[in-house]
Amino acid sequence: MLTDLPLEQLWQYRSAQTTPDDFDAFWADTLTESRAAAPISIELVRVEPDLASIELYDVTFPGFAGQPIKGWLRVPAGAGGPLPAIVQYIGYGGGRGRAWENLLWASAGFVHLQMDTRGQGAAWSAGATGDDPGPAASGPQIAGVMTRGIDAPEDYYYRRLVTDAVRAIDAIRTLDVVDESRIAVLGTSQGGGLALAVAGLRDDLAAVAANVPFLSDYPRAIAITDARPYHELTEYLAVHREKAEQVLRTLSYHDAVSFSSRASAPARFSAALMDPVTPPSTVFGAFHRYAGEKEMRVWPYNGHESGQADEEAEVLAFLRARLAAGPA
Amino acid sequence: MLTDLPLEQLWQYRSAQTTPDDFDAFWADTLTESRAAAPISIELVRVEPDLASIELYDVTFPGFAGQPIKGWLRVPAGAGGPLPAIVQYIGYGGGRGRAWENLLWASAGFVHLQMDTRGQGAAWSAGATGDDPGPAASGPQIAGVMTRGIDAPEDYYYRRLVTDAVRAIDAIRTLDVVDESRIAVLGTSQGGGLALAVAGLRDDLAAVAANVPFLSDYPRAIAITDARPYHELTEYLAVHREKAEQVLRTLSYHDAVSFSSRASAPARFSAALMDPVTPPSTVFGAFHRYAGEKEMRVWPYNGHESGQADEEAEVLAFLRARLAAGPA
Amino acid sequence: MLTDLPLEQLWQYRSAQTTPDDFDAFWADTLTESRAAAPISIELVRVEPDLASIELYDVTFPGFAGQPIKGWLRVPAGAGGPLPAIVQYIGYGGGRGRAWENLLWASAGFVHLQMDTRGQGAAWSAGATGDDPGPAASGPQIAGVMTRGIDAPEDYYYRRLVTDAVRAIDAIRTLDVVDESRIAVLGTSQGGGLALAVAGLRDDLAAVAANVPFLSDYPRAIAITDARPYHELTEYLAVHREKAEQVLRTLSYHDAVSFSSRASAPARFSAALMDPVTPPSTVFGAFHRYAGEKEMRVWPYNGHESGQADEEAEVLAFLRARLAAGPA
Amino acid sequence: MLTDLPLEQLWQYRSAQTTPDDFDAFWADTLTESRAAAPISIELVRVEPDLASIELYDVTFPGFAGQPIKGWLRVPAGAGGPLPAIVQYIGYGGGRGRAWENLLWASAGFVHLQMDTRGQGAAWSAGATGDDPGPAASGPQIAGVMTRGIDAPEDYYYRRLVTDAVRAIDAIRTLDVVDESRIAVLGTSQGGGLALAVAGLRDDLAAVAANVPFLSDYPRAIAITDARPYHELTEYLAVHREKAEQVLRTLSYHDAVSFSSRASAPARFSAALMDPVTPPSTVFGAFHRYAGEKEMRVWPYNGHESGQADEEAEVLAFLRARLAAGPA
Amino acid sequence: MLTDLPLEQLWQYRSAQTTPDDFDAFWADTLTESRAAAPISIELVRVEPDLASIELYDVTFPGFAGQPIKGWLRVPAGAGGPLPAIVQYIGYGGGRGRAWENLLWASAGFVHLQMDTRGQGAAWSAGATGDDPGPAASGPQIAGVMTRGIDAPEDYYYRRLVTDAVRAIDAIRTLDVVDESRIAVLGTSQGGGLALAVAGLRDDLAAVAANVPFLSDYPRAIAITDARPYHELTEYLAVHREKAEQVLRTLSYHDAVSFSSRASAPARFSAALMDPVTPPSTVFGAFHRYAGEKEMRVWPYNGHESGQADEEAEVLAFLRARLAAGPA
Amino acid sequence: MLTDLPLEQLWQYRSAQTTPDDFDAFWADTLTESRAAAPISIELVRVEPDLASIELYDVTFPGFAGQPIKGWLRVPAGAGGPLPAIVQYIGYGGGRGRAWENLLWASAGFVHLQMDTRGQGAAWSAGATGDDPGPAASGPQIAGVMTRGIDAPEDYYYRRLVTDAVRAIDAIRTLDVVDESRIAVLGTSQGGGLALAVAGLRDDLAAVAANVPFLSDYPRAIAITDARPYHELTEYLAVHREKAEQVLRTLSYHDAVSFSSRASAPARFSAALMDPVTPPSTVFGAFHRYAGEKEMRVWPYNGHESGQADEEAEVLAFLRARLAAGPA
Repeated sequence: MLTDLPLEQLWQYRSAQTTPDDFDAFWADTLTESRAAAPISIELVRVEPDLASIELYDVTFPGFAGQPIKGWLRVPAGAGGPLPAIVQYIGYGGGRGRAWENLLWASAGFVHLQMDTRGQGAAWSAGATGDDPGPAASGPQIAGVMTRGIDAPEDYYYRRLVTDAVRAIDAIRTLDVVDESRIAVLGTSQGGGLALAVAGLRDDLAAVAANVPFLSDYPRAIAITDARPYHELTEYLAVHREKAEQVLRTLSYHDAVSFSSRASAPARFSAALMDPVTPPSTVFGAFHRYAGEKEMRVWPYNGHESGQADEEAEVLAFLRARLAAGPA
Repeated sequence: MLTDLPLEQLWQYRSAQTTPDDFDAFWADTLTESRAAAPISIELVRVEPDLASIELYDVTFPGFAGQPIKGWLRVPAGAGGPLPAIVQYIGYGGGRGRAWENLLWASAGFVHLQMDTRGQGAAWSAGATGDDPGPAASGPQIAGVMTRGIDAPEDYYYRRLVTDAVRAIDAIRTLDVVDESRIAVLGTSQGGGLALAVAGLRDDLAAVAANVPFLSDYPRAIAITDARPYHELTEYLAVHREKAEQVLRTLSYHDAVSFSSRASAPARFSAALMDPVTPPSTVFGAFHRYAGEKEMRVWPYNGHESGQADEEAEVLAFLRARLAAGPA
Repeated sequence: MLTDLPLEQLWQYRSAQTTPDDFDAFWADTLTESRAAAPISIELVRVEPDLASIELYDVTFPGFAGQPIKGWLRVPAGAGGPLPAIVQYIGYGGGRGRAWENLLWASAGFVHLQMDTRGQGAAWSAGATGDDPGPAASGPQIAGVMTRGIDAPEDYYYRRLVTDAVRAIDAIRTLDVVDESRIAVLGTSQGGGLALAVAGLRDDLAAVAANVPFLSDYPRAIAITDARPYHELTEYLAVHREKAEQVLRTLSYHDAVSFSSRASAPARFSAALMDPVTPPSTVFGAFHRYAGEKEMRVWPYNGHESGQADEEAEVLAFLRARLAAGPA
Repeated sequence: MLTDLPLEQLWQYRSAQTTPDDFDAFWADTLTESRAAAPISIELVRVEPDLASIELYDVTFPGFAGQPIKGWLRVPAGAGGPLPAIVQYIGYGGGRGRAWENLLWASAGFVHLQMDTRGQGAAWSAGATGDDPGPAASGPQIAGVMTRGIDAPEDYYYRRLVTDAVRAIDAIRTLDVVDESRIAVLGTSQGGGLALAVAGLRDDLAAVAANVPFLSDYPRAIAITDARPYHELTEYLAVHREKAEQVLRTLSYHDAVSFSSRASAPARFSAALMDPVTPPSTVFGAFHRYAGEKEMRVWPYNGHESGQADEEAEVLAFLRARLAAGPA
Repeated sequence: MLTDLPLEQLWQYRSAQTTPDDFDAFWADTLTESRAAAPISIELVRVEPDLASIELYDVTFPGFAGQPIKGWLRVPAGAGGPLPAIVQYIGYGGGRGRAWENLLWASAGFVHLQMDTRGQGAAWSAGATGDDPGPAASGPQIAGVMTRGIDAPEDYYYRRLVTDAVRAIDAIRTLDVVDESRIAVLGTSQGGGLALAVAGLRDDLAAVAANVPFLSDYPRAIAITDARPYHELTEYLAVHREKAEQVLRTLSYHDAVSFSSRASAPARFSAALMDPVTPPSTVFGAFHRYAGEKEMRVWPYNGHESGQADEEAEVLAFLRARLAAGPA
Repeated sequence: MLTDLPLEQLWQYRSAQTTPDDFDAFWADTLTESRAAAPISIELVRVEPDLASIELYDVTFPGFAGQPIKGWLRVPAGAGGPLPAIVQYIGYGGGRGRAWENLLWASAGFVHLQMDTRGQGAAWSAGATGDDPGPAASGPQIAGVMTRGIDAPEDYYYRRLVTDAVRAIDAIRTLDVVDESRIAVLGTSQGGGLALAVAGLRDDLAAVAANVPFLSDYPRAIAITDARPYHELTEYLAVHREKAEQVLRTLSYHDAVSFSSRASAPARFSAALMDPVTPPSTVFGAFHRYAGEKEMRVWPYNGHESGQADEEAEVLAFLRARLAAGPA
């Protein structure tokens, strides 16, 4: 069952989301401060199991306010390099999982950094990064981060997470095995939303793959879906009735619609017509504003699971073409 | 339908929860540190609406690490005093709500402090207290706090919340309108669990009312219910499989079973035989260990809603008897 | 998620409900008969607990056909009077609950009569009034009253309940402590629907507060929601297929849309845009027909719980202004 | 999945239900009064459609307090008679349905009276009998009758319905086409409970077929199932907490366990091991007390739907054997 | 709640389904081949129970590829004949059930053949026919047949089932007791879809009764409902993403919309406005294309259960009128 | 919440399942016939995408009755060999998915054959193998195979699938790159049940890894869970009531409990204490009968998802140890 507009209307739909006047300044200041808080670095520790064809590393790099962010790095065994690289962000509630999962990208010849998600990583895959090194948020937890700090753009959880995602690119660029000119960002759902955010905040990406991106077109999302996680916003507003304007203002600084309008790298989007979690119009809302070269893949019979392995194969082809990476 | 053992077996049931050797030291240190962090104080600001018979105040007092904790104080209008006082804690997910709610206790002649719950207050009633004054946890949010900081007793969310609850007594004792010798604690579900925790950490309470208390007998709770919020623990352990021992250790420092064994004030418990949220055996687990004078009220046909207004009337009679407070 | 039209369309929406030609005669006859059946009276019995600031009374007054209707009266302690008064009606399934609940209105200086609901009072709060003194309906019960007697307007359950609600005003006017010129009606959901019905049948009310009113715009309600209690109508028609015209005719004598068109007192409505129980268009259906001065409060992010304590504060201000009642 | 004890334990299980001392007097008085209220009669009106092999009649006879009770009579076309007869009672929420349904029994050569259920007949099949000829209960309605009048045995809904069921036998015995010595009662779920009640109150029945009978072993039923309709009792007790003893007393006058202990006709019971609605132990509770000749059919893999057409075939064979009725 | 367009729009709605160019050839070849595979025959075995007024027979006849198809034949006892006949098809998941069920049609004077459904008959009523005499599909099973063989029209399950349904008419025509000029087809849901298919493939039917027919207007059905069984198609396409065109092509050979456009017998359709399983627009899609005389019955307050016994009475009158069959 | 016995009782639990006398003959004949139907062979076709480190092949080999069974073969790129090999079977409803998924085993240095599941592959991952090359079952479909052919052991679906699984070993042994003495079987849920079946039917396996195996201890499974797919059996028996003995007999030829008692290879089992799909006692039922060396891994806080990536790491270590395969 369609969960949103039929396809022909999606091509006509345009988001009503507005971008705050100081959006660019807000993010420029945010990134400047975090970069000043800690010089870039990336710590790699080789981990088990010992695979024949891929080397696995536990990664730590400085994110928002220089806080240590974890991840996994997967490098084709015996790679000479420099190689093209993919930085991947994760869906809502999950963490980086285990090092020996998600082997496609390195098996295909890419250096693959999978960034952990601060303060998530307790719902469907384990994380290892707290939202804050202080005691109040010292590790992964059952989520609810959609509303954390939502009363002000400066305090909002996603300000920190987006900054981490931008800094992940800073970090991977320092590796010798990586070709700086051939770095792509990739993600599904929340990961796709982060990929679009990074695309709007950097001009050095070679490609962007945003599958059924979340964090997009908030005013419409709240109106048309009651699926979590967008619904966490409604739950919050249902008891904090007096804060609606304030909350919508905070969200306007973190909407993929606005990030997309500042992007330049070639992008592949996907949307699923039966998706109640990231309804397709919210994806098209960002897509139509995307300022770079772009293409849209529609999955007509899928829900939020969207293209899964079929999407991976298409994204692999897209990234190989864009990053001049091909069969070995 | 009974959700747990039949009543006659509940009277025989004993919790298998153990108390860590350094449990008392852990809490003594915790309270000492927080008391050292900020001298006790209580700030009162009169708020609207202007009720004929009750004065309403916005309250701020220093909790864990001296962090500012909010609450409402409701004082019988024109009270001479000193009056008996009730400190009430709130159920999971909720905040202090609105000042003009919950008027029974002040209408009955008590000074009534309703403590806000740090970092909750976004699910069914609004809160105003963040888990931390820092940006990572700066306001209420959709919950998930059962697993926040759960990897170590020192970092666990409930260490902070229990300390707030203890400090609320410190704070209300400084008010002239309050008779220090006639202070009771009261709560339902999470609020009941906090009341038991405070009862185990103070020796100056006149009475304790713990309705269907939560935060009790964790090993059994995890085994017998899949209702939230206990289920958040299972969700966490389902992805952080290697942390089970560590998590159970953290919980053992925060279990009402252990707090109860150190309590001395007269206490009234309640349990509901059809309650899937705080199954009655987990309540009896704490009750049988309770070291002070005690009584148990069983609601045979209720779920977690338990006794509601009927419970309030019985608790009112119990507190009037224990606090020598009676019809005006 | 919006459960109905977006807000701008709600302002344009008009109900298609029609009013039977003999609507006014039907109700005039109904009230005349019931008033003839028993002279007005109100019996008050002081009840426990003894609160310092509010006197609680068990109330009995003659309703439809003179049948005894229960309620609670809450009077500010030591009130001189005459005071402004609020008559409150209750939501579907509930009864008057307990005397010591719902203390805001008396705490704010009003005489507060909370009318019990005949034959309900078994689902979420206890009632004490049967639908009939005969054996067939001698006490509260699990509901289903939406379809009781629905085959004819004369037999319909709501004919009796609306008459009770009108008679409650007759009754409270006889109290010395009440200022007859300052009586308001108040209710949420079914209570709001009853408030509108009374507003359409009396011209002596000082104000009307109808929160997310139920019992309104039946033809549309049946078409757009499958939430109970409107859905009970569909369930009935699904097996009594041949009675559709008959049932809709009965409902047309009991629709808040028609009552509203006959009202004159100043009214405050509320509607919630995410309410599946009393969808907002059904509320606007009554609002647009309301013949007196009127205002509408929209809760954009709430379901049927609507404004809760926030609504109470606004209603309190509204009633204080309309009833010339203010801070003591 | 088994919803109750395994089969071998069901054979050992005994109900703890007790029978009030004045149980027999209560029912003797009840029947005497109703029989005195109206002499027995049965009104038959031939109805459409005109079937080749069965004549269909709309039936009215005096039930409790002489109130008119509806039903359908189905008579083999051109029957000479006197014939054996079956009186059938209906499951919870349903009414007599349509005349042209349920043709097996008349097709097999029985006179078949299907009694309507007062005040039900709005949930899954239409009824035509109100609970009372007065306005409070003048027709079928969405149910909730489990708690109607439950505060006293004299007022309880099932006192009226059981009396109707007994009077249906009085009525059918007056028909020339019926052989008085060959009358059986039959029912499923509520209908089975009524069949047992009638079996306990009459000594002139030739056979009893009680399929997965409801209305049996209330104390255990409340404890072990949360499925409706037993759950309506729990819902009532959850808000009328002070009435538990009173309610259980009322039920003890209406429990199939007690009726069974007074029965003498040969009976066939059935129980389904995966039935959450009438859990098998509650059926065995009545079975073990049944004082007449008896047999039990267990459906090991069915829920409350139990044996359906397979049960009908077995019941048909049972009734043919007991009523000396066989293939034409 | 309406599950689809409001009634006035249903009258305007037209299906967008297209008919393949070789649709007629496809079906002509299919039927020719099956008729060639086995000469028509019908085997009757008298079965228990022995009913006074109806003779019950176990039926076997050759269906698709000559495979043996089961059914029940119910014949008015002692019928002279030739009589009018009804061939009935069954809803999704069910089988022919038991011989002694469904006695209305024979009681009303019709010869009644109820065809079993190959490979179904395991979900709500028992079947006895496998999809294939080979081991892979040798009996009834829990369904999933919507997607069996869906990759090609030739392999699709419904090609076989529709052929069985056509052959059932071939078979019944060979009985002496049947008047060949007075044969009607009848069915609800899947049975209604089969009735329309047969109507499109034969020109010798006297009447067609299609209640809430399934298997109709697939492209729209997939888009607007997520209820099973249409949803099985979506589930399939959600993992076989590359096969959408192929699957839709297969369905276009089996759509009641196309069958209807080739029909000539007078037809009675029904649709239910609150039906999520066969949404009313998909029924109107077939209805508007139906090429014979036609009428539509709308059930405004029903879901997929639609008219039940009320529908049976109307269908009975319709068939009696069309088949010149009347009260005996 | 525990879904079954507590752990200490699981260690004591023993299955009551019995093994038919001709169990061994049944399977010997089955395998002999299938091996006779087609000589072993394995067809490999290199497929896209071209991965740097793993070669992907589409596989076809002859299974039951020589029917063509699909699969994927993943071979470490540039492998000399002979290498240790893993044959993996898939969970219920799924198919082999996509070639580029599930890369761990080949990345770790194993030849990895993932066998497709006949007639499944339509619910959560795509398959490509029909249950039969004939039209009745010519491709993947929405499942229901638990009851396909269940009336006789010879016709039962799992007889065919188990034979395929045995033949997969025959096939892989023919590859030069595989070391015949170092072949393990692996699977989760249905895949685990198949691994145990193969372990009971072959004596040439080097290791067996059965994660939360399904298809085990049917009599108990039916009694204690209502989760699918075991529940499909209950659904079938609920309408085919007369076939219970017959169905249980069929299952007794296909129960992992009996296969386990004939196994010899070292085995690793896992069970999850909160698993409602394959309740842990049904796993222990097979484990306690397992005749080879064995170990059990318990996941105390997991449902049927069980150990996921954590399980994979432990299984990898187990297989490396057993197959003398280690870090490259």
